[in-house]
Amino acid sequence: MSNSEKYDRMANAIRFLSIDAVEKANSGHPGLPMGCADIATVLFTRFMKFDPKAPHWPDRDRFILSAGHGSMLLYSVLYLTGYEDMTLDQIKSFRHLGSKTAGHPEYGHATGIETTTGPLGQGVGNSVGFALAERIMNATYGDDLVNHYTYVLAGDGCLMEGLSQEAISLAGHLKLNKLILIWDNNSISIDGSVSLADSTNQLERFQASGWNTLACDGHDQEAIAAAIEAARNSDRPTLIAAKTTIGFGSPTKAGTNKVHGSPLGKEEVAATRKALGWEYPAFEVPSDTLDAWRLAGLNAAKARAEWEKRFAAAPADVRAEFERRMSGQLPGGFDEAIAAYKEKLVADKPKVATRKSSEMALEVINGVVPETIGGSADLTGSNNTKTSQTKEITPGNYGNRYVHYGIREHEMAAAMNGMTLHGGLIPYGGTFLCFSDYARPSIRLAALMGIRTIFVMTHDSIGLGEDGPTHQPVEHMAALRAIPNHLVFRPADAVETAECWQIALESQKAPSTLALTRQNLPTVRTENTDENLCRRGAYELAAADGEAAVTIFATGSEIEIALGARALLQGHGHPTRVVSVPCFELFEEQSDGYKQDILGGSTLKMAIEAGIRQGWDRFIGTDGIFIGMHGFGASGEISDLYKHFGITPEAAAEAAEKVLHKKPH
Amino acid sequence: MSNSEKYDRMANAIRFLSIDAVEKANSGHPGLPMGCADIATVLFTRFMKFDPKAPHWPDRDRFILSAGHGSMLLYSVLYLTGYEDMTLDQIKSFRHLGSKTAGHPEYGHATGIETTTGPLGQGVGNSVGFALAERIMNATYGDDLVNHYTYVLAGDGCLMEGLSQEAISLAGHLKLNKLILIWDNNSISIDGSVSLADSTNQLERFQASGWNTLACDGHDQEAIAAAIEAARNSDRPTLIAAKTTIGFGSPTKAGTNKVHGSPLGKEEVAATRKALGWEYPAFEVPSDTLDAWRLAGLNAAKARAEWEKRFAAAPADVRAEFERRMSGQLPGGFDEAIAAYKEKLVADKPKVATRKSSEMALEVINGVVPETIGGSADLTGSNNTKTSQTKEITPGNYGNRYVHYGIREHEMAAAMNGMTLHGGLIPYGGTFLCFSDYARPSIRLAALMGIRTIFVMTHDSIGLGEDGPTHQPVEHMAALRAIPNHLVFRPADAVETAECWQIALESQKAPSTLALTRQNLPTVRTENTDENLCRRGAYELAAADGEAAVTIFATGSEIEIALGARALLQGHGHPTRVVSVPCFELFEEQSDGYKQDILGGSTLKMAIEAGIRQGWDRFIGTDGIFIGMHGFGASGEISDLYKHFGITPEAAAEAAEKVLHKKPH
Repeated sequence: MSNSEKYDRMANAIRFLSIDAVEKANSGHPGLPMGCADIATVLFTRFMKFDPKAPHWPDRDRFILSAGHGSMLLYSVLYLTGYEDMTLDQIKSFRHLGSKTAGHPEYGHATGIETTTGPLGQGVGNSVGFALAERIMNATYGDDLVNHYTYVLAGDGCLMEGLSQEAISLAGHLKLNKLILIWDNNSISIDGSVSLADSTNQLERFQASGWNTLACDGHDQEAIAAAIEAARNSDRPTLIAAKTTIGFGSPTKAGTNKVHGSPLGKEEVAATRKALGWEYPAFEVPSDTLDAWRLAGLNAAKARAEWEKRFAAAPADVRAEFERRMSGQLPGGFDEAIAAYKEKLVADKPKVATRKSSEMALEVINGVVPETIGGSADLTGSNNTKTSQTKEITPGNYGNRYVHYGIREHEMAAAMNGMTLHGGLIPYGGTFLCFSDYARPSIRLAALMGIRTIFVMTHDSIGLGEDGPTHQPVEHMAALRAIPNHLVFRPADAVETAECWQIALESQKAPSTLALTRQNLPTVRTENTDENLCRRGAYELAAADGEAAVTIFATGSEIEIALGARALLQGHGHPTRVVSVPCFELFEEQSDGYKQDILGGSTLKMAIEAGIRQGWDRFIGTDGIFIGMHGFGASGEISDLYKHFGITPEAAAEAAEKVLHKKPH
Repeated sequence: MSNSEKYDRMANAIRFLSIDAVEKANSGHPGLPMGCADIATVLFTRFMKFDPKAPHWPDRDRFILSAGHGSMLLYSVLYLTGYEDMTLDQIKSFRHLGSKTAGHPEYGHATGIETTTGPLGQGVGNSVGFALAERIMNATYGDDLVNHYTYVLAGDGCLMEGLSQEAISLAGHLKLNKLILIWDNNSISIDGSVSLADSTNQLERFQASGWNTLACDGHDQEAIAAAIEAARNSDRPTLIAAKTTIGFGSPTKAGTNKVHGSPLGKEEVAATRKALGWEYPAFEVPSDTLDAWRLAGLNAAKARAEWEKRFAAAPADVRAEFERRMSGQLPGGFDEAIAAYKEKLVADKPKVATRKSSEMALEVINGVVPETIGGSADLTGSNNTKTSQTKEITPGNYGNRYVHYGIREHEMAAAMNGMTLHGGLIPYGGTFLCFSDYARPSIRLAALMGIRTIFVMTHDSIGLGEDGPTHQPVEHMAALRAIPNHLVFRPADAVETAECWQIALESQKAPSTLALTRQNLPTVRTENTDENLCRRGAYELAAADGEAAVTIFATGSEIEIALGARALLQGHGHPTRVVSVPCFELFEEQSDGYKQDILGGSTLKMAIEAGIRQGWDRFIGTDGIFIGMHGFGASGEISDLYKHFGITPEAAAEAAEKVLHKKPH
């Protein structure tokens, strides 16, 4: 058998595992695996360095299937190259509940899945973060320990999503030359020909953002190999436009949208077997081909053996630090630094905005945690995300710790996810809370994957004032809290801000969002506690003087208002407690007993938050009083706005008294 | 005075009104109005057709300030050209609560504001919808009645946002040659030089998507005029890269980020007055310059006088229909068509997915409402958005009613907003509910503006099955309901779907989202009602047999499960009522008495929805039973998923009985 025949058979193994799995599941997307099988064969047999026996090896090349609907391509390759958890049974269980082979690749389900993809454009967005992380880690650890490529396979859908433009322009700007994007240029989308909706010259588009661009026949394995080889030697990121036929091999459906997202059907499967000369039953890979694939897996792993030698030769402290960072563990001294900082805050009692408190906390954190990477979507001075330790990363110079993401909130989030997934770094990035909407698909994926990405969202209410309702979050706390497995913090002062940062950094299995004020807030945590009280999600900040008649729940800037209302109510003989609720999600994790205590039994309940009520009924019940927003905000001075919308100590106390006076004593 | 001097003074009038307003407000963005004053002067004195006395004149040119932070540019021009509601007092009240001159331009606050901008990229996104609407209306009404340009002024921020790429590529594809984008190419963003974050060659980028591109000195009014003239004669949309100096005229801050978003300060204001030779006190425009501007307003209005003549000459039925469409009123026969269709449904009792019900409803609607414009973000066959009346709009051929938006959910929403704002059309567009996240910033703006844009969101739960958690909305109903002034519908069958569509079309002051199933659902509204019951937001679908012990609230596909649970519970002696809740927002608008009745007093309360609990406590209280999702979904067959997540009639009945047995009888 010629080499060319061998490689054709290897590609056909991908095609038929994919066809058969989709057929058995009676659901899925055969078109991409059939169209991209040649690309995957070239990439995984000739270029990718990886070790199926050590799938988490830090210096592996990363492969990201941005067109996640083609998941069977990835699953097939993982099985064929010998990843132990990707068994033939898993392939046969494609899209069945409980299998590792979900409809779209799910990070954490099987090894070799570097990121969860499916929502289009996200893998492209992630890939820039992977490639940037590689360069940042390389700047610290050198070529011996970190020196690998990031390959991303994307379809027309990925390239039409606006996110891809943000990714492309950022990668081009940063000259991330070890990023190689292979475009499955099949000219077909779900509705039919891509030409129904797009006429973009993609090569010119990428060139405009500083990319190297190449084109090749996506079914000519030598041409693909030549393109990848050239891409690896470029001083810029590279687009390879690989002209493919979707559903390659299917006699009647290839090249059409019929093969994109539906099983081929029994007859067409048989016809495709015939057309491609694949005479084996479903799910059977002939031993010569399987052996060739397994050998490719062994060959790809040689790079790891060499790396292990280099790693072993590195100084012990470098090895230890590298391993710590890749493991995600925080360095020694972190807790102590936070504790000392909290003590200082309690002594100083600063009156600053929580965005400033966040900067102060970061100044401490960035001093003891060398792997944090700051950034902002062009609001550095407003988000307060830059500290003395974080100088800018610039094109070609990656030895620093701050990313100017540009006005690209979505890509900031997607890139941060990529950095987190790469390992060794803890990215945080800022924008206005209102514009969390722009980044929402990536925030959701961070939560779904369960990874530590940290979103710094400032200007968190009408408190931002004059910029008006387009910039004033109203529903955003509710909308962000709605995302499962997502820690949404709204700290009330500098102490809570420090505590929330501590939790966010410790949270390895969930992303965090910190909602922070523009306006100054007094320190309300005036006594030091060893315990991180924010870990409780909600806690009694101020007890009632006497048997509590009222419980006020509040967050962030409205804690000051709650304390003001408490003073008024207590002055009128109504003992009132104030509960700070920095994080709904963490509160739900507490014991039933703790939760009952906090909720305050039969006291009159009130919540104050300069956002909508949605979600607060859980604390105050349907009969509780809510002081907050009932619609969009307005442009005006902050004090005018709070008065206009009735979010003041006086309004809160009055609303409570109205009910208290009706109550029997 | 030479013409050139006159125009310079006219531009300076914009500059100083803006400088003075920002200074008085002690907040705002002087940099853009100062930098773009020459552009605005050329555009409004030499090209734009508009009539300050008739600001809603249908065939006016549209000017969209995508860089909304430069709002004072627009307010200044509106005042100077003589819009009656834009008084000098309004200019002096810039950014004060209750003024028409909000921090960012707010649609509906003052005439001449075509759309709300501020969140970057949105105006560019809208502009494609405006320009497309113009061509669609032109195709029906001809050059005599509809023939105008859409101008959009955008900054670097707008162009960095991914949304702009979706907009650019769609506009280029559709060859919208009456769209002219002027790029305020000032090389400055908030963090500093644009080169901190971007190196894109914007001209090449636009060319790659089929745009005509021009460049000019943004302070040479003759050069600007020549560029606009050339753009108007292009057969493609045009980018004009106007090289400007941000904060033009400020001796020490021009060309820097210091002038972007802060008042100049007293000294710098004085220095700028000196530098530009503007010797007038704050807010004073010398009479020669004001007269020149007012004359420009009168000249711009001449086109309207000619149009009125042409309009008067059109046949009466054409005039009447044109006016009806521009007014937003639905045509006669609409209610009757819906009523007849509902009757038919009740007779037929189809068992179809609500996405299919939606298509069936649209088949009726599109037959009687000629101004609907359908579309999908490349999921036409899945969203069921295309009917027999809606053929594709193609490049250069705008006489049809369906837009292939491509895989561009965000631009679809932004473009639909633009079409709605243009007037004469009712756009609706589809994607998967999960990907509403991609479009969220534009959905929010539709709600903030209070306009009738209709979002068709199918595959609305784990009921989509095998595609898995990346595609399964869980938190999306809650997140969409959180947006104020937004009607979020989740109909339970074909009858409710028809009713929800009727409400969505009638809703001229709020956008609507319809959440629709992939899976088939039985008809549960088996008796015809003249009343549109969905208008109530929630209504009793099935009364209890006997005095109700249990109230089950549910939506969409979970109504069937609620009815199943009701049957089980009633079989065990627990009379149970089922309340369908197609729209939370409309329920809140009902009378207190109605709401009390629906909420079901002291009955045991349960809600069933295949999403998260957030928001449901309002119906069931904190002690109610919630049957739904507690985290992300999973990839698997639909029946497996519903069982796995415990969303079945059996699980619901069991949960209710557990509580009922504890209750004293």
